[in-house]
Amino acid sequence: MPANRQILLDNRPVGQATASNFRLVRTETPALQDGQVLVRHHYLSLDPYMRGRMNDGKSYAKPQPLGQVMIGGTVGEVIESRHPDFRSGDQVLGTGGWQEYSVADGGAPGALRKVDASQTPLSYYLGAVGMPGVTAWYGLVEIIQPKAGDTVVVSAAAGAVGSAFAALAKARGCRVAGIAGGPEKCRYAVEELGFDACIDHRQHPDIKSMSQALKAACPDGIDGHFENVGGHILDAVLLRANAFARIAVCGMVAGYDGQPLPLQNPALILTNRLKLQGFIVGEHMKVWPQALQELSALVAQGKLRPRESIAQGIESAPEAFLGLLKGKNFGKQLVKLV
Amino acid sequence: MPANRQILLDNRPVGQATASNFRLVRTETPALQDGQVLVRHHYLSLDPYMRGRMNDGKSYAKPQPLGQVMIGGTVGEVIESRHPDFRSGDQVLGTGGWQEYSVADGGAPGALRKVDASQTPLSYYLGAVGMPGVTAWYGLVEIIQPKAGDTVVVSAAAGAVGSAFAALAKARGCRVAGIAGGPEKCRYAVEELGFDACIDHRQHPDIKSMSQALKAACPDGIDGHFENVGGHILDAVLLRANAFARIAVCGMVAGYDGQPLPLQNPALILTNRLKLQGFIVGEHMKVWPQALQELSALVAQGKLRPRESIAQGIESAPEAFLGLLKGKNFGKQLVKLV
Repeated sequence: MPANRQILLDNRPVGQATASNFRLVRTETPALQDGQVLVRHHYLSLDPYMRGRMNDGKSYAKPQPLGQVMIGGTVGEVIESRHPDFRSGDQVLGTGGWQEYSVADGGAPGALRKVDASQTPLSYYLGAVGMPGVTAWYGLVEIIQPKAGDTVVVSAAAGAVGSAFAALAKARGCRVAGIAGGPEKCRYAVEELGFDACIDHRQHPDIKSMSQALKAACPDGIDGHFENVGGHILDAVLLRANAFARIAVCGMVAGYDGQPLPLQNPALILTNRLKLQGFIVGEHMKVWPQALQELSALVAQGKLRPRESIAQGIESAPEAFLGLLKGKNFGKQLVKLV
Repeated sequence: MPANRQILLDNRPVGQATASNFRLVRTETPALQDGQVLVRHHYLSLDPYMRGRMNDGKSYAKPQPLGQVMIGGTVGEVIESRHPDFRSGDQVLGTGGWQEYSVADGGAPGALRKVDASQTPLSYYLGAVGMPGVTAWYGLVEIIQPKAGDTVVVSAAAGAVGSAFAALAKARGCRVAGIAGGPEKCRYAVEELGFDACIDHRQHPDIKSMSQALKAACPDGIDGHFENVGGHILDAVLLRANAFARIAVCGMVAGYDGQPLPLQNPALILTNRLKLQGFIVGEHMKVWPQALQELSALVAQGKLRPRESIAQGIESAPEAFLGLLKGKNFGKQLVKLV
């Protein structure tokens, strides 16, 4: 059996996550038992939700256990199979984690899904045509429920979710404004991703300034918002929200490292009759086929052209992940493992 | 024409509202024009939303104009009519404001509605079988959408909305916990209103203590919450909310007098996949007939037995209103004008 390299969560962050929270180990891949499949990972997905799992304490998911392989989505190729549904050479999507190889139970629901990389690049199944794309779809279609002509906003606009959000919102006739970190990302959002406007949050580090920037970017107010960040961005959006606006709450990255970040003026929920709704896309599997179909079509039509930030080799995963948390990535952050 | 006494908003509160914000004036009721109806008010309704209208600034409704009669719901009797749909002696519900008589346009939609006081006491049309009752109904039925066995919570439990909420929730097989100010109100909530438990917020003035009290009152967590108050009560409820809990935001009385009260931990919206939704019942007129029918039936069956706090005479309205804001009322706060 081939040798494997794995990244374990060694200890939990105190404040910001650092490379020393992780540990690289070498192991042997085990011999397969009946029903099991050995997968060689081509790409590992890095996603902001992983930061939340590194913390201990009550959350929607159990914390990542210490001393075990970091969780994560993977695409790869079947090397060996003792399950009738899979054979060597099959390309598969799974949750193999931060390692070069994984052993999956071929019969467990959702553990392993065959994908077709002839039309769609394999890596896209971790991004635009995968979990991040469906995340954007669910928040937009099921929570924000936009009408043509609505103005919608997304934070972390240049990331995997934000870029899919823009394409999906434009397809529905919305004005779509993004919020991203730095002039390069904002230019990219407008020139390549189809955003009508993009606000550099580094230029607007407080509620008042961000609120003024949103006023300029959204002259008709905000009807829907997709929140990936929280903190002063969400506060400012609420100040510009129209009556009956819908806020899909998908991420609160701003608060992962320390104390909770208060929402400054919750009375706006009442005065503007807002709806705020948190969601986790993995709990809404029934929408995935419909969402993936639309996302694939947008990619095929060239209306969704995802960019990828690709780190090389499993040993680069911790630094690439820490960079993602700081917003260093352009589009989907991946680690290439072959 | 009869002489009239009116309460005007004289000046806006700085911080807490006070009696000096109001001014009593004597006027003559004007001669009627075609289409107009003169109503003698029997009862004036006092409601927390009026405090919000006393402030200037952007909100869901225009501020109460200075120098004009305070807005408010009224029930009374037609004294004179120049509209074919109304005649002397008709009992009517309207929004006559803080005065003894009002002149209404008999044809304006929603301005004046004939009511039947033979079965339901006239004053109930301002409470259990009126706007507060429908408010409870909308928040519970349309936003919280409870299932039998759910645990639901309401703040300002002993008020007009809270008492209707309890009856409606019990009719749906819920466990219902209230939050009210003082042991007397809590006893009343449990013994007379049908609450399964009631928490005295004066005994639990911070998030941690309130959260512990909620844990005891709601051993299976909270599935739905109806917020009338905001502040540390809402913070504590979020800490005890089950996954997918729904929060109907109807009032933020805690923040009316001054600076906005932050929501301490909005990340809970994500981690618990909560829905928070603000609403104003006057924007959902289509549910009123259905809601009023259920509320009338609950009253007729003795399952909703509203208590009323009745002040006497228009001159008592300001003090009664300030008392309402401080929670001095038991049940619906009214001013009796005849």
